Amino acid sequence: MASSVTSTKIIRIGPNGQENAPDLVANEEPLEIRLGIGSANEREQLSLSVTMRTPGHDKELALGFLFTEGIINSFDDVSSIEYCQTVKTEEAENVIRVELRPTIQLDADKLSRHFYTTSSCGVCGKSSIDAVQVPIQPLKDHFQKVDSKVVCQLPKLLEDAQMVFEHTGGLHACGLFSSDGKLLELREDVGRHNAVDKLVGVLLSKKMLPASDAILMLSGRVSFELVQKAARAGINFIAAIGAPSSLAIEMAKKHDITMVGFLKNSSFNIYSGEKRIEISKGTCQ
Amino acid sequence: MASSVTSTKIIRIGPNGQENAPDLVANEEPLEIRLGIGSANEREQLSLSVTMRTPGHDKELALGFLFTEGIINSFDDVSSIEYCQTVKTEEAENVIRVELRPTIQLDADKLSRHFYTTSSCGVCGKSSIDAVQVPIQPLKDHFQKVDSKVVCQLPKLLEDAQMVFEHTGGLHACGLFSSDGKLLELREDVGRHNAVDKLVGVLLSKKMLPASDAILMLSGRVSFELVQKAARAGINFIAAIGAPSSLAIEMAKKHDITMVGFLKNSSFNIYSGEKRIEISKGTCQ
Repeated sequence: MASSVTSTKIIRIGPNGQENAPDLVANEEPLEIRLGIGSANEREQLSLSVTMRTPGHDKELALGFLFTEGIINSFDDVSSIEYCQTVKTEEAENVIRVELRPTIQLDADKLSRHFYTTSSCGVCGKSSIDAVQVPIQPLKDHFQKVDSKVVCQLPKLLEDAQMVFEHTGGLHACGLFSSDGKLLELREDVGRHNAVDKLVGVLLSKKMLPASDAILMLSGRVSFELVQKAARAGINFIAAIGAPSSLAIEMAKKHDITMVGFLKNSSFNIYSGEKRIEISKGTCQ
Repeated sequence: MASSVTSTKIIRIGPNGQENAPDLVANEEPLEIRLGIGSANEREQLSLSVTMRTPGHDKELALGFLFTEGIINSFDDVSSIEYCQTVKTEEAENVIRVELRPTIQLDADKLSRHFYTTSSCGVCGKSSIDAVQVPIQPLKDHFQKVDSKVVCQLPKLLEDAQMVFEHTGGLHACGLFSSDGKLLELREDVGRHNAVDKLVGVLLSKKMLPASDAILMLSGRVSFELVQKAARAGINFIAAIGAPSSLAIEMAKKHDITMVGFLKNSSFNIYSGEKRIEISKGTCQ
């Protein structure tokens, strides 16, 4: 499997001048996702999208992408996911083919018109504003209240688990936590949308969706598309180190999702869904 | 014009409990870019892409996007850029139409196959790995050496100029600086690719390209696509607060671009093109 980091030679400049040093950087390579569709007798191939991603967990990325974009609705819609064997050697692990079950009806015309080459960025790549929205099922809510102490611990817990991040500082991360702060899954990528797709992909393959009793923790900012991806996965609690955008907040409110931003070890902002947080005085520090 | 920030009510949680407070968040809305192409007698409309962006400088965004993606090669290729008047009121400033001059030959078929709905994310959205690369002219190099003192000042200069960032913390920024550290142009967006496209758009419209004697300063990490956009604009010095990816470094080396990362007020890393930096001992602090 391709590595998620590469070593490189750098010149480090500081107050005391310069030094040559080895360094690790996050890998970034294109992944093309191809779809095998059609009846058992008449299979058709569709090149769906290319995304720049950090190699690793590629099958989960493809799976999560198809799910969060609304192309598949369950793990059972997929009969196989394999790297293409028919491509040039240097692209060998950069082209992945997902075979959908013959029973899955897809309108290839609609895909190629409205969805063709839509991207892991969630919406960019779509060809009209109407195509931006993905259908979301009403979210289940059997969520235990989360203690604000637990919320404040999430950044540290995520960082501790981010082995690659510690090495390169170049990767976005997202983690799924239980409501008492136990890390369930973690995925990383140079693209934050890819990180979420990888996470959703593994949850889908482990039959852990909808993840309505868990917290999605993000290492960066929160855009509209990330909230949409979370909502597709049935997640109703998002916490992020960075700021949410206006549309991210609007989307969170629309789907009754709790949104926490600017999360530090001693403070955070609640943008929506405060009902799911138990606030203990003096506990964040 | 739509604002780049929106006010919202939040609950702020800290060591001393909670308080309700007003807050500002970065606006995020979809922008659809439509292209008017064809001969004077036979005009055709192509819906090229939807990107989630922060409203403001939309014409520059559209212009920069078309240029960095290789659809246009000069400002003269465009006869007009206007918001569409025929769309629903609520989308009024979210759909923009760019009229290309009738003399510009575009292969609409090729666009819709290989390029249709390509995104501001640079590559995601493209339908095959071959389509990722945009043609780059050899870069001119009449660059004065940049003093390491100047390099270390760039983050502070960028931050000072980022009025919106100070308010929301939610926007990526990119600035074009002269080699002695004077800010020439600054653009911001929730998407870092959009911020660069807006910057390239204003440079294109002011006939400031190729910007081969300037520094592109980025507030975040550096991906392959950002280097490709810079190279299209003839920029051969990139400095960033975050980390570059492996492919970003590869691309920088290929086009002989200077790449500085992890830039702080007292230190930075050089990944390529150290020949353009004059290193003064003890000057970064």
